[in-house]
Amino acid sequence: MKLLVTENYETLSQITADIVLMKWAESRRVNLALTAGSSPKRAYEILADRLKQVDFDQSLAHFYNFDEITLKDQEYGLTMQALTEELFLPLGIEEENIEVLDSKNYQAYDQKIAADGGLDFVLMGIGSDGHFCGNLPEFTSFDYGVYRVPMAPEDELYKMIDESSPHTPGEEMVTFGPQTVLAAKELVLIANGEKKAGIIKQALEGPITEDVPASVLRLHPNLTVILDRAAASQLS
Amino acid sequence: MKLLVTENYETLSQITADIVLMKWAESRRVNLALTAGSSPKRAYEILADRLKQVDFDQSLAHFYNFDEITLKDQEYGLTMQALTEELFLPLGIEEENIEVLDSKNYQAYDQKIAADGGLDFVLMGIGSDGHFCGNLPEFTSFDYGVYRVPMAPEDELYKMIDESSPHTPGEEMVTFGPQTVLAAKELVLIANGEKKAGIIKQALEGPITEDVPASVLRLHPNLTVILDRAAASQLS
Amino acid sequence: MKLLVTENYETLSQITADIVLMKWAESRRVNLALTAGSSPKRAYEILADRLKQVDFDQSLAHFYNFDEITLKDQEYGLTMQALTEELFLPLGIEEENIEVLDSKNYQAYDQKIAADGGLDFVLMGIGSDGHFCGNLPEFTSFDYGVYRVPMAPEDELYKMIDESSPHTPGEEMVTFGPQTVLAAKELVLIANGEKKAGIIKQALEGPITEDVPASVLRLHPNLTVILDRAAASQLS
Amino acid sequence: MKLLVTENYETLSQITADIVLMKWAESRRVNLALTAGSSPKRAYEILADRLKQVDFDQSLAHFYNFDEITLKDQEYGLTMQALTEELFLPLGIEEENIEVLDSKNYQAYDQKIAADGGLDFVLMGIGSDGHFCGNLPEFTSFDYGVYRVPMAPEDELYKMIDESSPHTPGEEMVTFGPQTVLAAKELVLIANGEKKAGIIKQALEGPITEDVPASVLRLHPNLTVILDRAAASQLS
Repeated sequence: MKLLVTENYETLSQITADIVLMKWAESRRVNLALTAGSSPKRAYEILADRLKQVDFDQSLAHFYNFDEITLKDQEYGLTMQALTEELFLPLGIEEENIEVLDSKNYQAYDQKIAADGGLDFVLMGIGSDGHFCGNLPEFTSFDYGVYRVPMAPEDELYKMIDESSPHTPGEEMVTFGPQTVLAAKELVLIANGEKKAGIIKQALEGPITEDVPASVLRLHPNLTVILDRAAASQLS
Repeated sequence: MKLLVTENYETLSQITADIVLMKWAESRRVNLALTAGSSPKRAYEILADRLKQVDFDQSLAHFYNFDEITLKDQEYGLTMQALTEELFLPLGIEEENIEVLDSKNYQAYDQKIAADGGLDFVLMGIGSDGHFCGNLPEFTSFDYGVYRVPMAPEDELYKMIDESSPHTPGEEMVTFGPQTVLAAKELVLIANGEKKAGIIKQALEGPITEDVPASVLRLHPNLTVILDRAAASQLS
Repeated sequence: MKLLVTENYETLSQITADIVLMKWAESRRVNLALTAGSSPKRAYEILADRLKQVDFDQSLAHFYNFDEITLKDQEYGLTMQALTEELFLPLGIEEENIEVLDSKNYQAYDQKIAADGGLDFVLMGIGSDGHFCGNLPEFTSFDYGVYRVPMAPEDELYKMIDESSPHTPGEEMVTFGPQTVLAAKELVLIANGEKKAGIIKQALEGPITEDVPASVLRLHPNLTVILDRAAASQLS
Repeated sequence: MKLLVTENYETLSQITADIVLMKWAESRRVNLALTAGSSPKRAYEILADRLKQVDFDQSLAHFYNFDEITLKDQEYGLTMQALTEELFLPLGIEEENIEVLDSKNYQAYDQKIAADGGLDFVLMGIGSDGHFCGNLPEFTSFDYGVYRVPMAPEDELYKMIDESSPHTPGEEMVTFGPQTVLAAKELVLIANGEKKAGIIKQALEGPITEDVPASVLRLHPNLTVILDRAAASQLS
């Protein structure tokens, strides 16, 4: 595990932006799965700026959403909507370079990834419950490939989405499982802020357990973890 | 995971021999950890034959013992004695290319491996209890690097060694832990014979759990499993 | 450069067969360009035997012909006909895993390779004039990607094909150029027999020059050369 | 070849700094050869700033000078003096992580590099005569490993050094040859400013020839070229 602790979120974001940029600029097809959400927000802004200042062949990188929470009566789920808004539109990523995971195709998705040449790179955040991608404690298992978690109105996840989103949740979440993610060539995990300090401590220094799903990422031979000082503050 | 199922042990051994040969022949330093024991026995014989028929620069590969069971009043433990007899002597491997793990140096060994450039290749067998290297169920934890398991006369492992070896067991086993092994660039697991069929089924298709330590190998992005038909007979 | 010198052609062929087998068995899409011709003949026979003895997922490897000499009134050219007979049919390679280079698509072929994820592996022989793939002295240039060499009845190449083949030659050869080949992740060059000893000496120990096209292969960071003792006999 | 053209030198330098940072932060030994000189000047300043803001394990990267021009009565030559001033001192690189190439050890240096695990990364500039490292037109040959170029008072190189340096030149230059450099896993070439536009055009789009030594870098499967818009202005 490669660990970088940055003074602040801005530096974390600059480094993350350049890492993604260099993957994107590959001269052969590469398959990237980039997280949506708050952690990479600034990195994507910097990346959008970079795109105004840097020319390169953008056509060879394919972008995968690594999880999806379906929404009722919506073509795209929560993740694809967020990625579209935060990444695909501002960065001008062409539709033909976007590979969509959804509730219809998830069962053959590990096979699709293998046929596409495998994942080259996954950029992830970590939830305060230790989840990565859609791998929630109590719902994931280290041996899962891409899988589906059903979701009903009485479930916490359902309620959380229902409250925070303008749309009504659908019937499921689908996600790359631990096996899918750890089969990638390179992983980057980013976290910032004091509120992540506890879970980072558990994920990086505690036992490797399905109760803290992100703890399993440490087993990957090519994992980079980038934290700001606040998120790293409880590490020994 | 790359899975090859061979008609018989001979074919398994031929392929394994050639895989090791090509790693050994690298044109830059490579760090190999090769298992002793029954599974690779024939592969090493074939490799010894290959050496009479193939010239290459043998100087750049370094050989690591990935575990060790100490023996009383013996310079080397059980693993080094076996490797010396089965691999180092018959293949003429120079002492300067042998990197010894023992009860004195194990604490700094993960650091040594990193300073040496990391492990490039680990060839392993699997025990009928699911152990790989010295990672025994109940004694290992997925987050372990190189570690020590104390051993006393009342322990099963101690008794087993005491009975099967001409030497008196020492006070411990040391071994590369799951973290150490999974940090390697490439892993190969071999198994043959019907008596391995059950544990192979568990390791490759059951849950990934510390109760079946080898199950964790499936999480590595560059694992090859080679089985003869008997060992694969319970796979779905 | 990794150099292996084998006692004889049989050992060379066994090792080559296992190298190709392990590439073929990858768990993600891999793109292989394998030579036709006399040098790999025995390796492919061994590989055909291996296939009867080894089960693995054969669906993820794609096979590219790295050159082609068109033939009049024939769907396929000389190389594809040879590969079909020597490799694709005996090994049962599915049509959907065969990627055809021909005189119609060669101009966009470097781009196609990049979009396919790049070449993972190229297995080549060497001509007694130092050519590799279709890169003939006087016709190739180190900066060429995939290119076309026109061919007329008065040309030596045309005459040679006209005499040795039951078909009338067409109007061109197309081939992966040095740039295309050296962009691959891994290269293997094989040569056997005394008649190759002189050109092997030039290619491996002489100047790197377009007059001996294969000499440029030495610049690749991941080249393996496998020779039998006869082909290696002039090496210093 | 991965090509990035940046709006300006500052962006080029930021990206270059982050690339070097991520190599430096590896979790296993890595061998880096970084250029001195004007092109990376700003990147190293940014890197020095990064070091104040980013904590990581700095102990596993080893730094190689890829060429050296000896100076009379000086322990270190021109390159080591420049690297010490521009890189090693400001970045606080420990002496034990610095691998010195000089006129005494150059003959065994390719072997040393192989024994060290190979070069992982080389960052280079390009001279207006097309040289990279110390590979000058008329003095280099694509098949050279590490080699020595004698230098006498009547030589241009000698005079240039004599004029621009406070020290008297010594008797030679030693340098990684094309074979040494192209054996590395990853290459990055940077160039900025209009005065480099012509040679960049030749090196990237002209013939691959020893007259423009850097043209050979295009043959490497893992080359990244980063240019500012001025240096790229003549590219088609």
